[in-house]
Amino acid sequence: MLLGKVVGTVWATRKDESMVGMKLQIVREVDVHHAEKDRFVIAVDSVGAGVGEIVLVAQGSSARQTQLTRDKPVDAVISAIVDKLDVSG
Amino acid sequence: MLLGKVVGTVWATRKDESMVGMKLQIVREVDVHHAEKDRFVIAVDSVGAGVGEIVLVAQGSSARQTQLTRDKPVDAVISAIVDKLDVSG
Amino acid sequence: MLLGKVVGTVWATRKDESMVGMKLQIVREVDVHHAEKDRFVIAVDSVGAGVGEIVLVAQGSSARQTQLTRDKPVDAVISAIVDKLDVSG
Amino acid sequence: MLLGKVVGTVWATRKDESMVGMKLQIVREVDVHHAEKDRFVIAVDSVGAGVGEIVLVAQGSSARQTQLTRDKPVDAVISAIVDKLDVSG
Amino acid sequence: MLLGKVVGTVWATRKDESMVGMKLQIVREVDVHHAEKDRFVIAVDSVGAGVGEIVLVAQGSSARQTQLTRDKPVDAVISAIVDKLDVSG
Repeated sequence: MLLGKVVGTVWATRKDESMVGMKLQIVREVDVHHAEKDRFVIAVDSVGAGVGEIVLVAQGSSARQTQLTRDKPVDAVISAIVDKLDVSG
Repeated sequence: MLLGKVVGTVWATRKDESMVGMKLQIVREVDVHHAEKDRFVIAVDSVGAGVGEIVLVAQGSSARQTQLTRDKPVDAVISAIVDKLDVSG
Repeated sequence: MLLGKVVGTVWATRKDESMVGMKLQIVREVDVHHAEKDRFVIAVDSVGAGVGEIVLVAQGSSARQTQLTRDKPVDAVISAIVDKLDVSG
Repeated sequence: MLLGKVVGTVWATRKDESMVGMKLQIVREVDVHHAEKDRFVIAVDSVGAGVGEIVLVAQGSSARQTQLTRDKPVDAVISAIVDKLDVSG
Repeated sequence: MLLGKVVGTVWATRKDESMVGMKLQIVREVDVHHAEKDRFVIAVDSVGAGVGEIVLVAQGSSARQTQLTRDKPVDAVISAIVDKLDVSG
């Protein structure tokens, strides 16, 4: 999974009808020391992540393996909110 | 999903027969401030997006999760038209 | 889909038996103004594309959604030959 | 598969319920001479890999082909611990 | 598919049990003139490729479309050994 920080929200009224009701978050990639990278992904939020939180994003077909996203045209999902990163290596 | 801007259209008469009737849009990647990147993807339009609009593109097998694209040799679909990006983080 | 130009052919007699008879083309990525990039992909040709033609390549599992490539160990397929690119944005 | 080194662990209590009990490892990409790259992936550990070990990570839908990860929103899994790399070419 | 050169072998005794018996090759990406790039992928060998041979590697779910790799946590497979590249474009 990709490590990222929620930095905002996408508003889209015209979309595939199966996506109605999904919260679309803007996730900026970060490294393991929380330094922000210059890459973003738009991900469906399945865990209630708020702006500023560090999250894990699953991509590709794996993004459709939640109740919210199953069989939807969605290729990125926030599947976890990170409490802590232990970097020891 | 990838954030992009529709910048044109692809015309292709010789193609896999399952793709007949699909509108193929040229989408240029943009960042969350709408700055254009030097990367493009050709995506099937499932939501009626016009040139100049900011859109979300789902890629990979997720691009086949719309009525229009199901079981087609298509790896990118425009699944939403963006009204607004709230970047607060 | 990726935009590319057919620049050659791969010859391979020792291959997965399910791939026998497939034409393997070398596709060089191009931008929307046909400028060549320094990236290549080897793709199965499902539409009879010749050297020099601009094509669309579908990748990943979507590359297996043609009659020719279904259930084959193939991750890139030429699914359309481009007649014209209208870049207006 | 990607070659990497386990360098730490992710702690996440709020996550998709199907992920409860999974160990999430931080894997830093390395080259075939074990030189560390500046890229990381968060992967589910299915083989008991410890910090400092060189591992193989399978990504995408292939990451869901273990008993632990089947049908889960997981796009990276540690599927092997490397004993030795023979680089002769 | 990706074009690469087999440059070595990975030894891993602790791995997902479904992977027992698979030969894991180190494949270095090359361009169409056989110039070596600084990118590697670890791929299962399904065609008996030896060190020094130029091969095609299928990635993602397509890597599981061989008898050897079906339903395995494997995201890259050597599916063909290249005899010759005709680059004319």
